[in-house]
Amino acid sequence: MATYLVKVFISYRKGVLDPQGVAVEKAAHQLGFTKVRNVRVGKYITMEIEADSVEEVKREVEEMAKRFLVNPVIEEYTYEVEEVK
Amino acid sequence: MATYLVKVFISYRKGVLDPQGVAVEKAAHQLGFTKVRNVRVGKYITMEIEADSVEEVKREVEEMAKRFLVNPVIEEYTYEVEEVK
Repeated sequence: MATYLVKVFISYRKGVLDPQGVAVEKAAHQLGFTKVRNVRVGKYITMEIEADSVEEVKREVEEMAKRFLVNPVIEEYTYEVEEVK
Repeated sequence: MATYLVKVFISYRKGVLDPQGVAVEKAAHQLGFTKVRNVRVGKYITMEIEADSVEEVKREVEEMAKRFLVNPVIEEYTYEVEEVK
């Protein structure tokens, strides 16, 4: 058994309205950061998983994504796994 | 002038209560993902910035982080820059 650190990056699919992204972009422009575009605000989830292998961790993460972490209609995700202990 | 893609990862500092992380961890355990621990939910912000160099992009991002993107009392952040066009 080892401990793995998992980082999951969830963002809205292209074409899905992202009001938080719009708000951040507006704030940026108002504060003088005028060269900023296409701001999108998603989720950055980190967790630790105990498992015997990276493959087991990947299965767990993909199963969690499917079951409850990600809404595939409006969101897409990527993830990274690294062993920590 | 080139266009750069910037990815900003914002998470709560250690010790700061993260109710969303607690909720995700509880959901994971209830659904049988019992080996998941220390779930933290942060923000994953992507944006495009027009600039003459990576250094200019870094200055913009760090200035935005300081001015409005990140609350340094409870949050910490990292970021990545890559040229896209």
